[in-house]
Amino acid sequence: MPLYTSITPEGMLSAKQKQLIAEQVTKLHSEVMGAPPSFVRIIFQTYPAGDGFTAAKEGKLAVLSGQVRMGRSKETKTKMITSLWTLYEKATGASKDQMLVFLADVPATQTMEMGAILPEPGHEAEWLAVHG
Amino acid sequence: MPLYTSITPEGMLSAKQKQLIAEQVTKLHSEVMGAPPSFVRIIFQTYPAGDGFTAAKEGKLAVLSGQVRMGRSKETKTKMITSLWTLYEKATGASKDQMLVFLADVPATQTMEMGAILPEPGHEAEWLAVHG
Amino acid sequence: MPLYTSITPEGMLSAKQKQLIAEQVTKLHSEVMGAPPSFVRIIFQTYPAGDGFTAAKEGKLAVLSGQVRMGRSKETKTKMITSLWTLYEKATGASKDQMLVFLADVPATQTMEMGAILPEPGHEAEWLAVHG
Repeated sequence: MPLYTSITPEGMLSAKQKQLIAEQVTKLHSEVMGAPPSFVRIIFQTYPAGDGFTAAKEGKLAVLSGQVRMGRSKETKTKMITSLWTLYEKATGASKDQMLVFLADVPATQTMEMGAILPEPGHEAEWLAVHG
Repeated sequence: MPLYTSITPEGMLSAKQKQLIAEQVTKLHSEVMGAPPSFVRIIFQTYPAGDGFTAAKEGKLAVLSGQVRMGRSKETKTKMITSLWTLYEKATGASKDQMLVFLADVPATQTMEMGAILPEPGHEAEWLAVHG
Repeated sequence: MPLYTSITPEGMLSAKQKQLIAEQVTKLHSEVMGAPPSFVRIIFQTYPAGDGFTAAKEGKLAVLSGQVRMGRSKETKTKMITSLWTLYEKATGASKDQMLVFLADVPATQTMEMGAILPEPGHEAEWLAVHG
């Protein structure tokens, strides 16, 4: 964790665009949120054309959501989400009114990687020394 | 935001049914939760027959979940979820024991549309005047 | 609810493996979290090879997430997630560094099954007597 999920219409993103988004989101999350790159997971999901709606009108809706460990300051999360918006808008070419970006908090105590409960934000180094 | 996600077995919903659900959910959310229709996003996802389980038995599970801005009263959310159930049951024709409907809260401060952090519930008009 | 969602690369899980995971997760959730098996929902989702990333590198990422009713003790949730990890690792054969398992809490008051708001954890028997 984090787990970022990108949901776009089929065919919107090329393999190259996905790779670029993965690289940029991973770097950004690591720098702003302080997690090691190995924690950053991204899955690209798609839906068939016609299955996304805004204001009840079909459109090319592009959603980037992140499930992140709870405990960062509001300022940190604002910086993260603002930067995510900018990179996702540029990388996808999605229309501004067809985009949604958000972060949801999950307690670190309810999250496992490498067979171990994740550390609270700020305690990654000790955890990695044992489980990394 | 809200982002509503409908997950049904492949083939359960026609394009007409999806359009109807999108219209009804958008209208309902706007009336009950007070958000402008332009905030209401819906994506229809599917899974192959056989990949949904209840009590470890394969079945035609239909799930409608909404990620909504935090801050509405319990009464408002109860009204919303009860009405969602009724419309989704009618529109999908899903069996009552194969349905799940729920709402999860996300802080408005962690959500972006139109390149801007979303307003708290009740402050949509000011936001739309600037970003809408 | 709970709603467990398994997300794996296409082709990773056979029908037999999915059935086994469904049985084990349902049994475990019922024993540890105290919910009746009829509440336990599982959906298996997949993504095309190449669309999952860890540390910006493409890999066979396998994610098991559970949306569960809020209100269990930290000890109960720790036991649940630890056991989920063990069963999911064994059942999927996923690499340890390509796995993520987590639980997110949703208020029971915002969740419906059988046309009724779900009970708080510990009050399932009364609810089932009326709605089961």
